[in-house]
Amino acid sequence: MLPGVGVFGTGSTARVLVPLLKAEGFEVHAVWGKSEEEAGCLAKELGIPFHTSRSDDVLLHQDVDLVCIYIPPSMTRQIAVKALGIGKNVLCEKAATAVDSFKMVTAARYYPQLLSIMGNTLRFLPAFAAMRQLLVERYVGEMQVCDVRVYGPSLLDQAYGWTCEELMGGGGLHTVGSSVIDLLSYLTGERAHRVHGLLRTFVQQNGLIRGIRRVTSDDFCFFQMLMGGTGSRSGGVCCTVTLNFNMPGSFVHEVMVVGSTGRLVARGTELYGQRNGSKSEELLLGDSGWVGPEVKEMTLPHLQGLSSMVKALRESFQAHEERRSWARGPVSMAPTFEDGLYVQTVVEAVKRSSCSGEWECVEIMSQEPDPNHNLCEALQRNKN
Amino acid sequence: MLPGVGVFGTGSTARVLVPLLKAEGFEVHAVWGKSEEEAGCLAKELGIPFHTSRSDDVLLHQDVDLVCIYIPPSMTRQIAVKALGIGKNVLCEKAATAVDSFKMVTAARYYPQLLSIMGNTLRFLPAFAAMRQLLVERYVGEMQVCDVRVYGPSLLDQAYGWTCEELMGGGGLHTVGSSVIDLLSYLTGERAHRVHGLLRTFVQQNGLIRGIRRVTSDDFCFFQMLMGGTGSRSGGVCCTVTLNFNMPGSFVHEVMVVGSTGRLVARGTELYGQRNGSKSEELLLGDSGWVGPEVKEMTLPHLQGLSSMVKALRESFQAHEERRSWARGPVSMAPTFEDGLYVQTVVEAVKRSSCSGEWECVEIMSQEPDPNHNLCEALQRNKN
Repeated sequence: MLPGVGVFGTGSTARVLVPLLKAEGFEVHAVWGKSEEEAGCLAKELGIPFHTSRSDDVLLHQDVDLVCIYIPPSMTRQIAVKALGIGKNVLCEKAATAVDSFKMVTAARYYPQLLSIMGNTLRFLPAFAAMRQLLVERYVGEMQVCDVRVYGPSLLDQAYGWTCEELMGGGGLHTVGSSVIDLLSYLTGERAHRVHGLLRTFVQQNGLIRGIRRVTSDDFCFFQMLMGGTGSRSGGVCCTVTLNFNMPGSFVHEVMVVGSTGRLVARGTELYGQRNGSKSEELLLGDSGWVGPEVKEMTLPHLQGLSSMVKALRESFQAHEERRSWARGPVSMAPTFEDGLYVQTVVEAVKRSSCSGEWECVEIMSQEPDPNHNLCEALQRNKN
Repeated sequence: MLPGVGVFGTGSTARVLVPLLKAEGFEVHAVWGKSEEEAGCLAKELGIPFHTSRSDDVLLHQDVDLVCIYIPPSMTRQIAVKALGIGKNVLCEKAATAVDSFKMVTAARYYPQLLSIMGNTLRFLPAFAAMRQLLVERYVGEMQVCDVRVYGPSLLDQAYGWTCEELMGGGGLHTVGSSVIDLLSYLTGERAHRVHGLLRTFVQQNGLIRGIRRVTSDDFCFFQMLMGGTGSRSGGVCCTVTLNFNMPGSFVHEVMVVGSTGRLVARGTELYGQRNGSKSEELLLGDSGWVGPEVKEMTLPHLQGLSSMVKALRESFQAHEERRSWARGPVSMAPTFEDGLYVQTVVEAVKRSSCSGEWECVEIMSQEPDPNHNLCEALQRNKN
């Protein structure tokens, strides 16, 4: 039986998510917004019976069994951990810091019977699911290099807000890079052990963000990841990622995996392949078409992934009679909170590398750091 | 009046160069090959009256006023320096090391009345000449990022030779990266002051290179250059270059410059542009077509550049009555031996960075190092 859903957030993803949930038969009972007005507006637009600006009203809502959290990264941890504590299943976007991610992992481990998955939906995009399958079947032979490029217009909101602030989880690396880092660990079946990166904020002010305000989040980022846990610098897959959000009017979302006997390239939502012997690329999976509300082209891979993820959620919950019970099978490919912590750890290692200029190790947190120590670090970082 | 030409080398570039020279009215009097047989073969094929395997026979040939050197990098310095010493004009390919490049610079400075230019021909490709002009006219506004990708099949020769040996000047970075490094300094009008890179040799043996022999030259290389001499890490153009020669059946040669108000992209020999306001790319310069002998698609940008360079050489020499005199104007955009030293210095800094994992400074040699010190360094490097 499908669980009742409560949604946190009134942004563009929430706006797409609700119709997708409804299309699969989920009932969306409640929506939370930063203000009553925003929440009311979305509730009216999408026909959601209850809206509020107080988080507990959604978390404690008796018809809500699954909580979907699409709010600014700095607020995510608090809601996600609380929802699990109340006994609700959780689907959520990334948190702002590794410490927050670690707290979410701790909660998820404490309630293993509850569903807790991250909203990195690229894994669910059919092109990437097919790519992973072909990689396992050794279409490319021995994997050598993954090369990812995402180019597009600015990620900044119209008004000054968290998207402008590096420390609030804004920036191309945190917003888009996260999903790429998650995807690459899914595709290669390995995690990064060393990373190197460079971040830039080329546009620090614009027509809407000016005066004493400055953008601190990156609009250009490239980083390299050496995959595999061998510790040696040779061997293992090299990943290179270039993110550039100073290209209005453009959209490039390209993921290429080169191996010893061929290569696979996902462009947007389509998958192409070429074996070393052949003279040209073959289309392996065409675009299946987007049947949801009108969206920006750039977000299509994510939204088509989201659509597949919602289908998988439906299958997962349908397998059981009880509203809050779910089967692991259909959502086994979904990123866990542990994956979320890994991704956040890589993001922070890339940022550290951009400051230090050196290769940084990816060391997953195994216990919560002393909060005073963190404060010192945050102050240190602010100075730069 | 056009000078008589002597050509060193019997490889694919020499094979294309000779017809280009003849088409512009140059007389090619002599060709040098590693063996009498190779030289004789090319001489017969291209109708060159004299061939030899002794370099002095070409250098001292009385009808030869311009020497074109297209031989393995490790032999280039010796021939180039000797040719200048004998009073011949020189067009040549890159040397194997910065020390060799420095010796060539010293010779070129000593004979300023002789023409001495490097064979990095991408500057002469019409697409890049137009790109440079548009950058000067601020088509893209403030330059932010240059992103270069060259993908293609293996660069290794059929048999084991210098292309397999990193220390002999083989590898994607040295062979193709050099021309990209030169091009980017031309396009941006700035030089790299810090670089970071990663080199890999994914294919260490193949059907022809096996047993105790191993390829040591890179088939994958990723590097970043921070341009401008300010010394600060922020500000200045960021260049990222990805070279991958494990992609048989593919050819990508893409140079993109992104700026504050638009961007320019050269794909192969064509130039495209898009200003931030506009919805799509415009074709700024189409392919002019290749009318020389049949060549690999991958080498087209270089060979079309070579063709333009030969035209410029003709104009330069035509301006004067005397066979060995030339005018600076038509070849003013050509890379000098000083540019060659810069390029070689960057190549070596990228290699150092790949070993150290750190950003390396680009410091142009200003005096010849102690040869004993070099020997030690070479031995050290061999150990890794």
